[in-house]
Amino acid sequence: MRTVFWDEEKQALCIINQRSLPAKLEIVTMQAPEEVNSAIRNMTVRGAPAIGAAAAFGLALAANQSRAQSADLFLADIAAASSLLRTSRPTAVNLTWALDRVLQVLKIRIAHGQLKGVDDLRKVVLTEAQRIADEDVNKNKLMGEIGSKLIDDGDTIIHHCNTGSLAAVEWGTALGIIRTAHDQGKRIHVLVDETRPRLQGSRLTAWELGQYGISYEIITDNMAGYFLRSGNVQKVFFGADRIAANGDVANKIGTYMLALAAYDNGVPVYAAAPTSSIDLSIKDGSEIPIEERDPEEVLGIQYHNENAAPLDAKARNPAFDVTPNRLITAIITEIKIVVPPFAVNLPKIVMPESF
Amino acid sequence: MRTVFWDEEKQALCIINQRSLPAKLEIVTMQAPEEVNSAIRNMTVRGAPAIGAAAAFGLALAANQSRAQSADLFLADIAAASSLLRTSRPTAVNLTWALDRVLQVLKIRIAHGQLKGVDDLRKVVLTEAQRIADEDVNKNKLMGEIGSKLIDDGDTIIHHCNTGSLAAVEWGTALGIIRTAHDQGKRIHVLVDETRPRLQGSRLTAWELGQYGISYEIITDNMAGYFLRSGNVQKVFFGADRIAANGDVANKIGTYMLALAAYDNGVPVYAAAPTSSIDLSIKDGSEIPIEERDPEEVLGIQYHNENAAPLDAKARNPAFDVTPNRLITAIITEIKIVVPPFAVNLPKIVMPESF
Repeated sequence: MRTVFWDEEKQALCIINQRSLPAKLEIVTMQAPEEVNSAIRNMTVRGAPAIGAAAAFGLALAANQSRAQSADLFLADIAAASSLLRTSRPTAVNLTWALDRVLQVLKIRIAHGQLKGVDDLRKVVLTEAQRIADEDVNKNKLMGEIGSKLIDDGDTIIHHCNTGSLAAVEWGTALGIIRTAHDQGKRIHVLVDETRPRLQGSRLTAWELGQYGISYEIITDNMAGYFLRSGNVQKVFFGADRIAANGDVANKIGTYMLALAAYDNGVPVYAAAPTSSIDLSIKDGSEIPIEERDPEEVLGIQYHNENAAPLDAKARNPAFDVTPNRLITAIITEIKIVVPPFAVNLPKIVMPESF
Repeated sequence: MRTVFWDEEKQALCIINQRSLPAKLEIVTMQAPEEVNSAIRNMTVRGAPAIGAAAAFGLALAANQSRAQSADLFLADIAAASSLLRTSRPTAVNLTWALDRVLQVLKIRIAHGQLKGVDDLRKVVLTEAQRIADEDVNKNKLMGEIGSKLIDDGDTIIHHCNTGSLAAVEWGTALGIIRTAHDQGKRIHVLVDETRPRLQGSRLTAWELGQYGISYEIITDNMAGYFLRSGNVQKVFFGADRIAANGDVANKIGTYMLALAAYDNGVPVYAAAPTSSIDLSIKDGSEIPIEERDPEEVLGIQYHNENAAPLDAKARNPAFDVTPNRLITAIITEIKIVVPPFAVNLPKIVMPESF
């Protein structure tokens, strides 16, 4: 099942509700871009590739809602929805990438003048959103094939956050690679960083690994160093929300400390992401905007059914950090395994067929 | 109020129940060494200095329970209680240190032959336990005076686990230093590592800082790297459960990754502990036994009132890690600030007056 998919009959966007896992697997149906905006903000849908596809389908919902009678007015409606969706989360570049791509294709088609009416324009938007989704699955499968060469039979891997099917349209990036290696018959054990504050590791990655029959144990994020020092971990894998031109990687908070601990112990560090996560427009990680979320995400866990912090406690909640390129062994994309120097070796973003 | 104290009237050991904070401040009363053993194991009392004092008082409870009529049989009863308490937690050396000290004093007094009967022996045990507790408070105050010189007005400090009054008999080690600096009028802001899995930071340190009126914000452990890279953190402080002869420091899980992130950003790293936490009998950190606790501590938090992991999930739970000496700027004891090379500069353990 895809995490993000279009229901043709209902003309609706369907997504797996990632807030309700692992307790229950629930599908949420959306018919307005505002709903998609909220779903991205509150992390009903999350994961850089998944939010890119969801945002693109959000434009298809805007297209269906538009009462415009001309191409210009229709384009204005789509651009307005795009502006809204663009604000939903600032760090992952896939969101902007997907929105820009749909808008650009629409503009090109309008400029070419072959479209007969607004219904044709609606089709262009939906078709492009669907392409983004389909391509994402293909890219993830390719990434799995390419990246699985780095995994050996018997490896113990530390994995941060969730980068599986749930983080993408299907299959996943770093976890997709692990899944591919597992399907190749390699025996793998995953130490799953629980990934505070939102616990994407213990809630989502553990759930996915259980589905796939891959051996795992959950650890708290601060235990990774202990296991890396033990000499029993062979690799570290995570995804990326944005990769700067020099190979600095913005990813879920905690990635930097994990990469540092791996580096300190000579354990290879692999970031896996589609080329749509590469942002060559920024020189290095210092330019990547880091989202700071509601402190309640930090304070709102219960321990022994009691609040885990004083009621008047304050908290900080940066959702991402930047791992400097010097700590990263290789970046795995759907095209190739990119090794340092990243500034030279990172591929340009591949243009879609529709361009 | 002391975290660990003797009730003369009830002839009982009283401790603050650290499992019930911050929801409620509750005192637990114990009259048998078996209760103390359980309280240390389940972390009703925790913190290296606090469990040392609690264990010593546990021997005083054993002394009260003993029906021995001779010094030899009495000594055997105390030795048996000591063996039980010694197993309660393996990593912190203060526990062993306190038990050995009481036993040794008792043996010396018996050997000197000045004691008139078993009641006199009981007094020796209780007096020595009380001395350990009183000395701990004095040592913490001294550590506070000595260590506070390292803190400047305006500092933002990252602090791991709980090292305050609750972790000791009173005042605390690293947090005692911060408290001393605060009392000197220095403005300090503490970023409190929540310290998964048992959340000693968000539950206990945040509660203490609130009591003292010291400014703080809670962060998840994996956020420390982000803030250290930001350039807005001036110091890192934590305690120690055992310090090897070369200055390697065993402390609460996550300390190693925190120290590494501080080191990577040129931020000084200070470990604070009484000399009773120094174990010159071991060469380096690799010889320190690391306790692995119940996986339920990792799995048993609730998120949005739901379990944060699949019901059949497994977890690992090492409770401590070892920070190599190369990452530590200085170790603060009640005698002096110890700088590298630690193998040369670490002080010998000071013998108590009673020896």
